[in-house]
Amino acid sequence: MLGVSVRAGILVTGTELLTGSVSDRNGPWLSERLGEIGVEVAAILLVGDRPSDLEAALGFMRDEGFDVVVTSGGLGPTADDMTAEVVGNFAGRPLALDEEMEQKIHNILKEFAKRLRFDPEALRDANRKQAMIPEGATAIDPAGTAPGLVVPAGEQVIVVLPGPPGELQAMWPLAIETPAARGVLDRAEPLETSSMRLFGLPESEIAQSLREIEQDADLSGLEITTCLRGGELVVDVRSRAGSEDALEALWAGLRERHDRFLYSEAGEMIDEVIAGLLDGRTIAVAESCTGGLLAKRLTDRAGASEYFSGGVVAYSNEAKTALLGVPEELIAEHGAVSPEVAEAMADGALERFGADVACSVTGVAGPDGGTEDKPVGYVCFCVKLAGGEKLARDPALPGNRADVRERSTMVALHLIRYLLQGREPPR
Amino acid sequence: MLGVSVRAGILVTGTELLTGSVSDRNGPWLSERLGEIGVEVAAILLVGDRPSDLEAALGFMRDEGFDVVVTSGGLGPTADDMTAEVVGNFAGRPLALDEEMEQKIHNILKEFAKRLRFDPEALRDANRKQAMIPEGATAIDPAGTAPGLVVPAGEQVIVVLPGPPGELQAMWPLAIETPAARGVLDRAEPLETSSMRLFGLPESEIAQSLREIEQDADLSGLEITTCLRGGELVVDVRSRAGSEDALEALWAGLRERHDRFLYSEAGEMIDEVIAGLLDGRTIAVAESCTGGLLAKRLTDRAGASEYFSGGVVAYSNEAKTALLGVPEELIAEHGAVSPEVAEAMADGALERFGADVACSVTGVAGPDGGTEDKPVGYVCFCVKLAGGEKLARDPALPGNRADVRERSTMVALHLIRYLLQGREPPR
Repeated sequence: MLGVSVRAGILVTGTELLTGSVSDRNGPWLSERLGEIGVEVAAILLVGDRPSDLEAALGFMRDEGFDVVVTSGGLGPTADDMTAEVVGNFAGRPLALDEEMEQKIHNILKEFAKRLRFDPEALRDANRKQAMIPEGATAIDPAGTAPGLVVPAGEQVIVVLPGPPGELQAMWPLAIETPAARGVLDRAEPLETSSMRLFGLPESEIAQSLREIEQDADLSGLEITTCLRGGELVVDVRSRAGSEDALEALWAGLRERHDRFLYSEAGEMIDEVIAGLLDGRTIAVAESCTGGLLAKRLTDRAGASEYFSGGVVAYSNEAKTALLGVPEELIAEHGAVSPEVAEAMADGALERFGADVACSVTGVAGPDGGTEDKPVGYVCFCVKLAGGEKLARDPALPGNRADVRERSTMVALHLIRYLLQGREPPR
Repeated sequence: MLGVSVRAGILVTGTELLTGSVSDRNGPWLSERLGEIGVEVAAILLVGDRPSDLEAALGFMRDEGFDVVVTSGGLGPTADDMTAEVVGNFAGRPLALDEEMEQKIHNILKEFAKRLRFDPEALRDANRKQAMIPEGATAIDPAGTAPGLVVPAGEQVIVVLPGPPGELQAMWPLAIETPAARGVLDRAEPLETSSMRLFGLPESEIAQSLREIEQDADLSGLEITTCLRGGELVVDVRSRAGSEDALEALWAGLRERHDRFLYSEAGEMIDEVIAGLLDGRTIAVAESCTGGLLAKRLTDRAGASEYFSGGVVAYSNEAKTALLGVPEELIAEHGAVSPEVAEAMADGALERFGADVACSVTGVAGPDGGTEDKPVGYVCFCVKLAGGEKLARDPALPGNRADVRERSTMVALHLIRYLLQGREPPR
């Protein structure tokens, strides 16, 4: 951990976040923004809408000595939206009506009420509450109907933002430009971020490498995070000015040890890497068990139409024959999940789409359909160039249906990369 | 909020969760599981990997009087995996080597090391640490390599689980069956959960309906959460025994007001509803801008091969012609994104896959490619039965590329449902 001068806590309120039915998007978004300006996020705390929950949470963040607390939620017009009042009390700043803000909210609601055919007066009453501002706090103009607040609270500054992600994101830049927020945030030293992505390497190996590299080089100026997702290992590094040598030593050490697994040093995702490697060529896919996921991943990127010709999701045997020209006899002889059928599917995709590169996936995603020879998780891949060069694999992948589909997609993407790079995958 | 007798806090550790690069999946998952067994989750707290962070977080959860604390993460083999030790100290229970567990982990790692060709002894040393168990705690067999723990800590019980979601989810049922956990959890009164799903209704409308229904019926025995995702509005209700009348009043009130938007009263997802409506018939899809997402959604479900024939992702115009038989002239005359081409794509999918039902999507996902007539978000849909009956729409959908792709997929799924139900979509 770096010698960070400004620490923050994020406090997200909303009972719906505690039932598991909704995932919090504001915590991660705020973390990223705070990190970019050099503020270390030390905790993200999700609590319900009750004032007592909120008070306890604010108390925790004061006890921890956080310089900045950012709250989201509880600024709406209803009686259980209590954040402004609780934060005001916590900071020893009673609420008072801000008449200018009241007029602003009135004007916003007038339009809103007209569109939805509500009684504008009733709405205004319900929303006058939203113009109540703690004494000495700075109000932030609403992106929706709720104003935000920047509230000095002893040593801390508390930034109060509404819960809807669109509103919170629109108001954040205004909030951090207020003098009260600047007073704390200007003490933070922005960090450089960089990352490296590897595929197929266990996390324990990276941990071992980091220990080894640390014996030869002082990495204390770096904050290193490793994280594993779907077989991809991402090494994220934040560094302060003056740590360039440490950063170079880290990357050189990882490159030296794990070159075979390394596929991106600039943080690009695998679909971006493939887009670059295709370099004007086109690609098509033929999928069975991944059911469209591979095509989806290749078209997530804006501009995918420049190189993605298309794909066939050939779920039934008939579809494999009709749409990809896989001979019925081949399926009868080897089974739909076989290296032979995988190659025929890739051939079919090359030919039908007139593509330069094709990738096929056929496997047993489960939960049913597994046999002793071909258990759930057995998946056959074939990547082929129009010129005939190919790369085929048929691993047994672990996990449930969703895992097998996700992992198969990742394996397929990386096999495409290996073939385009002219490299042999490890193992 | 219902009169809940058992309250829980969830403590998720991992520095990577505080940088915004990864979203926490364990908090929401554990919340849902705890809710199902009648335990109220009062807080979810995400902190870094440092022992001091963890201690402060455990202190907060003790001060709040939570009956159960569930932690995730920090059980790995590396030096910064400190959860077992910190929890042991916090509970006043020093660690001791559990030899039986050491042997279990050794056996797991032996296989792992063999497959990956690592030195098994080195790996075992790094992982012996994982067999250190706080005195008086119950160890939970690992799903990966890290055992879990159930640690009595004064009035509380602390359930310690590993961070990888797959491992955590596999070990949860074992953890809650331990006598130490049961001692607390058995005090909770399980809640009945039920839900209703609507499509195309704004969230503000539901809030208004809930207020109206509440005027005629006492809903205080219910905990109602509404949440909007990709145009789908989910109303989740938790109720205790004795609230059956309130529940019935709620559902009747929503049914009466929003029948046109309601598509599921038993909580089924749209793909399950479609599977039921198909009733032995087969379906195929022809996608452009959704790039495989529609096929993916229709194949998420186990058993999809019974009714999903397959799909074509026809990204290029050539692919639309070659794989779906869309006449080149039709594309030249109306453009690839047009109701005419959408219908020809559906016809092509019906014919090529020999399916009973087909759905096509062609649109401008953006960020480029929009025109004044056909801006980003303009999407054409056609659902057609082999008999010729059809349902076509061409709305302008809001949002960025990812939003348009997600929303288009949802609209397509619901248009399939409307046609199969013989109903007309609202508006």
